[in-house]
Amino acid sequence: MKLKINRDHLLRGITLATRSVPTKSANPLFVNVLLEANEKGLTMLGSSGDLTIKTLIPIRVNELEVLRVYTEGKALVNAKLLNEIIRHLEGSEVDIEVIDQTLLQVSDGRSEFNLNSIKPSDYPDFDLEHDGVRFAIDRQHFVKLVDQTVFAASTKENRPILTAVHLNAKNGLLVAAATDTARLARKQVELKDNVTFFANVPAKTMQDIARIVEVTRVEEIEISVTDKKILFEFDGTFIASRLVGGDYPSTKEIVLKTYNSFLEANANELIKAMERVSLLSSERERIVRLTMSENLVQVSSSSPNAGRASEVVPTCRYSGEPLSIHFNVGYVTAAIRACGSDDIHIEFTGELKPFEVKNLEDDSQTQIITPTRTFVDK
Amino acid sequence: MKLKINRDHLLRGITLATRSVPTKSANPLFVNVLLEANEKGLTMLGSSGDLTIKTLIPIRVNELEVLRVYTEGKALVNAKLLNEIIRHLEGSEVDIEVIDQTLLQVSDGRSEFNLNSIKPSDYPDFDLEHDGVRFAIDRQHFVKLVDQTVFAASTKENRPILTAVHLNAKNGLLVAAATDTARLARKQVELKDNVTFFANVPAKTMQDIARIVEVTRVEEIEISVTDKKILFEFDGTFIASRLVGGDYPSTKEIVLKTYNSFLEANANELIKAMERVSLLSSERERIVRLTMSENLVQVSSSSPNAGRASEVVPTCRYSGEPLSIHFNVGYVTAAIRACGSDDIHIEFTGELKPFEVKNLEDDSQTQIITPTRTFVDK
Repeated sequence: MKLKINRDHLLRGITLATRSVPTKSANPLFVNVLLEANEKGLTMLGSSGDLTIKTLIPIRVNELEVLRVYTEGKALVNAKLLNEIIRHLEGSEVDIEVIDQTLLQVSDGRSEFNLNSIKPSDYPDFDLEHDGVRFAIDRQHFVKLVDQTVFAASTKENRPILTAVHLNAKNGLLVAAATDTARLARKQVELKDNVTFFANVPAKTMQDIARIVEVTRVEEIEISVTDKKILFEFDGTFIASRLVGGDYPSTKEIVLKTYNSFLEANANELIKAMERVSLLSSERERIVRLTMSENLVQVSSSSPNAGRASEVVPTCRYSGEPLSIHFNVGYVTAAIRACGSDDIHIEFTGELKPFEVKNLEDDSQTQIITPTRTFVDK
Repeated sequence: MKLKINRDHLLRGITLATRSVPTKSANPLFVNVLLEANEKGLTMLGSSGDLTIKTLIPIRVNELEVLRVYTEGKALVNAKLLNEIIRHLEGSEVDIEVIDQTLLQVSDGRSEFNLNSIKPSDYPDFDLEHDGVRFAIDRQHFVKLVDQTVFAASTKENRPILTAVHLNAKNGLLVAAATDTARLARKQVELKDNVTFFANVPAKTMQDIARIVEVTRVEEIEISVTDKKILFEFDGTFIASRLVGGDYPSTKEIVLKTYNSFLEANANELIKAMERVSLLSSERERIVRLTMSENLVQVSSSSPNAGRASEVVPTCRYSGEPLSIHFNVGYVTAAIRACGSDDIHIEFTGELKPFEVKNLEDDSQTQIITPTRTFVDK
């Protein structure tokens, strides 16, 4: 392998491929990135085993030659090290060459790095084929689908299925749902393709892909789903993730039909008041009480060690019977932020019943939170 | 205690007093801050036992009333918690009141915090008296004295004396020196006062005080030194630190008189080249080789696992016999940065002899580094 490549394109490619590469791995090969130069361009592939990213730098980008391949070939080198080296180079072009099978030479005409490399044939093959159900989704819809659900997934490994986002497509709709049992976030978007499938995708993968595509200019993402893997494709990049096995719990019956008490609030004012009073909640739980009557809406909290705090939120309007409810402040602020609106509604049925945080302008998402039971009057 | 105070002045004061307060301490009282309101203003005092900071918010600042004391008194509350609360308040004025002996009420008219507090009489007395030798130092001179020496102090506790900066004043000069045995940084400044003393001040304290006074507008800092403590005073703030016990090793004989090889370099170019090649040095040591002849100056490094790297530095000029020298790249870049000049000189006597990094325009500082012995040709 021998090639000359534009440094900025190379850096973008290696940075993307390295995102899936773990710092440490039970399989030491997985700390590497596989480079492959051929007539299509330079492909970089990194994998953790569970998540695999392959990206192509083509010969030309917008008519401009960014890559010249003198000799085709492959190389396998430490991904994070190569990434750091490219990031530190100052030259606008980088020469890369395999010197016999054991060294990869990287040079910008100023610095020269000879990196120990491993036989590329040792690296496993990863399945990046378009199998199963295939459809396209608008990039911005995908980012919203992720950002409005993924935070509600569990981060605890004791029930692995809850660390996934559950995707369910039918009748031209794609629904994403995430729950850690104390809260539920659900979002639906319309699809052009009428496909039917369900899949449990690791929440972290969904998050990573949303951050990756957010900064691209692609309009659409192609997705293929089998019962084993999900594959995302956009702009010469392929990202494949394992799925989480097992049945996702049904969340439909949690969604309540009727509420009898309603709070209108300015999102920012309510979040700031809750975060302030939560300074005096116990550190692990961050439980806040919301006390509402038609005359007064107040947030308060207390900690046996530190003391107690309270604040009236004058911008809130409540209608319904007086109600006092305890909850994890992180759950409620995340749901309010997901609503993406200055004005939010919270709808209740009772002290110990789940309540719903709503943006009345957007019925494509559902944010439901279960109150915290507490035996101490906070 | 009952008072009303400007929120921004209160935040600045509590932030400063909290800098000395540990997150955890063997003495649980030390996580607190002592507030005392009297006719002079509001004093805030925090301490780790080793480092104590007391700062006064006076009644008036630039003719403007920033504080009104209704009832004099004291209170002792958790420092970091009070700091966080004040930071989160949005009102421009804050009311603070001791409610019986056990609660401190903090309110901006919107949020109300009732903080559990401890009997102020339980808190120890700290010695903040001006004892011993007393002198003044220009603030900017003090910051330079610290920044050009403190990095060379040891961070390892096995020889506590080397974690200190050694201060030595006589004949109208104050000299600071720091060494971790592999390098030495020394700086002298002139004093108006002809005082004689020496003291070993914890490097971390010197660093903290430089960062604190850097952002003030005071012209001078008052310093008092005994054989037990050093006290800094400026603008209503008192900072007292314990000294490190024991005799500081003599560093005078390390300073060499004659060099026979000289390197002129652009500081930034040399630092960047060394940091690039050090990407392929072993992670713990970061050893780089500098190979110099009158035709060529090159930096290089290698790691058994990762490979090797080299770079010619065309902006360097060397005069002397060809020389190859290994060193810890962090030591040399720190010394170059301390020089504070675009153009630096490095002067050598041989492969295994200490070398000196110099700013030829500034003979008030000395930066000496011992090469690393290595038995492998890097």
